[in-house]
Amino acid sequence: MSQDPPEAGDGPSYPELSLWAGRHPVIAVDAMGGDYAPDEIVAGALTAQRENDVTVLLTGPPARLRPVISRLGAGPELRVVPAEDVVRMDEGALSSFRRPRSSIAVACQLVRRGQASAVVSAGSTGAVVATARHRLLSLPGVPRPGIAVVLPTSPNPTVLIDAGATADPKPEMLLQFGQLGTAYAQIALGIASPKVGLLTIGAEPGKGNILTRRAHELLAAEPPPGAMAINFVGNVEGGDLMDGVVDVIVTDGFTGNVALKTLEGALRFAAGELRGALTGTRTAKVGALLQRRGLRDLNDRLDSESYGGAAMLGMGGTVVIAHGASTARAVASACALAADLSRGGITEKIRQRIGPQPERRFRRRDREPRNPEARNTEAK
Amino acid sequence: MSQDPPEAGDGPSYPELSLWAGRHPVIAVDAMGGDYAPDEIVAGALTAQRENDVTVLLTGPPARLRPVISRLGAGPELRVVPAEDVVRMDEGALSSFRRPRSSIAVACQLVRRGQASAVVSAGSTGAVVATARHRLLSLPGVPRPGIAVVLPTSPNPTVLIDAGATADPKPEMLLQFGQLGTAYAQIALGIASPKVGLLTIGAEPGKGNILTRRAHELLAAEPPPGAMAINFVGNVEGGDLMDGVVDVIVTDGFTGNVALKTLEGALRFAAGELRGALTGTRTAKVGALLQRRGLRDLNDRLDSESYGGAAMLGMGGTVVIAHGASTARAVASACALAADLSRGGITEKIRQRIGPQPERRFRRRDREPRNPEARNTEAK
Repeated sequence: MSQDPPEAGDGPSYPELSLWAGRHPVIAVDAMGGDYAPDEIVAGALTAQRENDVTVLLTGPPARLRPVISRLGAGPELRVVPAEDVVRMDEGALSSFRRPRSSIAVACQLVRRGQASAVVSAGSTGAVVATARHRLLSLPGVPRPGIAVVLPTSPNPTVLIDAGATADPKPEMLLQFGQLGTAYAQIALGIASPKVGLLTIGAEPGKGNILTRRAHELLAAEPPPGAMAINFVGNVEGGDLMDGVVDVIVTDGFTGNVALKTLEGALRFAAGELRGALTGTRTAKVGALLQRRGLRDLNDRLDSESYGGAAMLGMGGTVVIAHGASTARAVASACALAADLSRGGITEKIRQRIGPQPERRFRRRDREPRNPEARNTEAK
Repeated sequence: MSQDPPEAGDGPSYPELSLWAGRHPVIAVDAMGGDYAPDEIVAGALTAQRENDVTVLLTGPPARLRPVISRLGAGPELRVVPAEDVVRMDEGALSSFRRPRSSIAVACQLVRRGQASAVVSAGSTGAVVATARHRLLSLPGVPRPGIAVVLPTSPNPTVLIDAGATADPKPEMLLQFGQLGTAYAQIALGIASPKVGLLTIGAEPGKGNILTRRAHELLAAEPPPGAMAINFVGNVEGGDLMDGVVDVIVTDGFTGNVALKTLEGALRFAAGELRGALTGTRTAKVGALLQRRGLRDLNDRLDSESYGGAAMLGMGGTVVIAHGASTARAVASACALAADLSRGGITEKIRQRIGPQPERRFRRRDREPRNPEARNTEAK
């Protein structure tokens, strides 16, 4: 074990951390991830702890976090778990993978050790995904994680999964994403039997590419023995993303990421065009004044800060990834989402939905094996 | 040859049709494709012929088209090429494939026989793509066609290719789509050296799925012997679609179709939200009146009717696919686009860009082979 890095949670500092296992969520917040870290992250975490009945553990260099905490007038109520290394926003997945003392790695370790129930990070998505995949174990029967995001459809929101964790999934993984998305919609949106659709190009079952044609068959078939049934309603197209026709949209991480970013870009474009139209002429300006309230409402609806963030599911713990440009408000929303998912027992729910898996996998999990190559890398 | 269906263009009716080969475009218009066929199609084709210095050949049942033409006061100036069969809008690709006498099949035959330079259809995309792939030959070195659409980016438009013709392309096909898109942007948008980007998930070369990582290598490498260089500038993401950062965006038909429909859906959603915001309160209504002109301008920018339609490229003739709900104005725009592409010699330009191909393929093309199985199917 001498090659192992010192791990957060070891030592005498927080012996009570292992007690999170009840319904009271303990959220490990990566205080150093995000464009406005650590100030906005700490402020958001403090708001979440004060307003959401959660305990927050901030991971990062204590010398940098303590002054921020003091300025906010928080003092000992906010706990800091030391993590001296920081993954910069421009670092790729590979470099972050090798940083066991980074604030995001330590946050993941807290979950893996059972000392926190979920992670919140506004770090770069690539780095967070790579670190979480490395530090958290997969759930039995879920070889790849999926990222769930909530689209601001009206009147009901829609969950899109996967928004970018797994770029080249097998058809079977899309079936599992259907289970993850169903569990997420049940807990985060309170929908008892979420309608699940498959994102493809054409409404009929035979339409799509090779991946989605096979995934359609799997989603439409009887569930595997022990797994719970998915309420699969068929194919949806890109144009349906904002229509709220289904509660959960299943897709591969490549298509999901392109679709999500296209959506965001299009709404940004429309808002820009609108601003141009509203301020172009003098009479238009007067009109804009009269409409200010209506436009503000619209803006709030389209504002991603209020959604909470993207939830990486399918591992032995949930990671909520907030936008890199997150302010305190966005971080507080992300913590609230992480708390909701923890209270709802998302990991256990997914385990139940997927059903019992072959003995071998359970044994491997009990032994908590490590990839020896990865350990060597860490020791460098 | 007895099994062959009677083909349009045979017989004495239009011996002059073979003379299109100059720069004067002859557009074969599928008069029966589209929700408002044949009335709006005929009206649009007439407008195009009168205003765009093109000759239009309408394909469809003469008994249905003649009265429409008379009502429009056109008479003999609009030519009709008989095609008694009609592919309905709800018919799939497979059924249309087997309909050699359909208006879209006859229109494609006119191009294949050299009697028209391009096809315009507002029929169902699946049916048009399947029929065109079957009736028109591939270009040497371009095993699969790509559909190019122009996105309404500001200030400069962007070409997206492929928007849905080839759902599971090989990486080499994405390289060819780069050539098709470059030729299209040069002719339709007048850009001398179009900047080409690859749609993927992450800006760095190593990002994406297996397909795009390999396609990136091919696009960034020296062109194959004889092929012209592509001005490849790197990866773009979904959020860049509306930013106009590049002139041509290359993607597979699955991702491209999802992205395009997501874009349309998001702009529709934003317009709906806007309408709600603008008419919600009495003061907002007054404001809306004042802004009417600004909003109309915006609406025109977002209105797909003015773009002309999607161009299916990479075959021995261009097919412009107009929206199924096309009105006369949209059909006229599609004819104008088809005429521009014909005048610019798009097929020849693509051939030059791709470069000379192994002798074998040229010979096959000269013999104009037919798939014997397909012929049997036709004879049913």
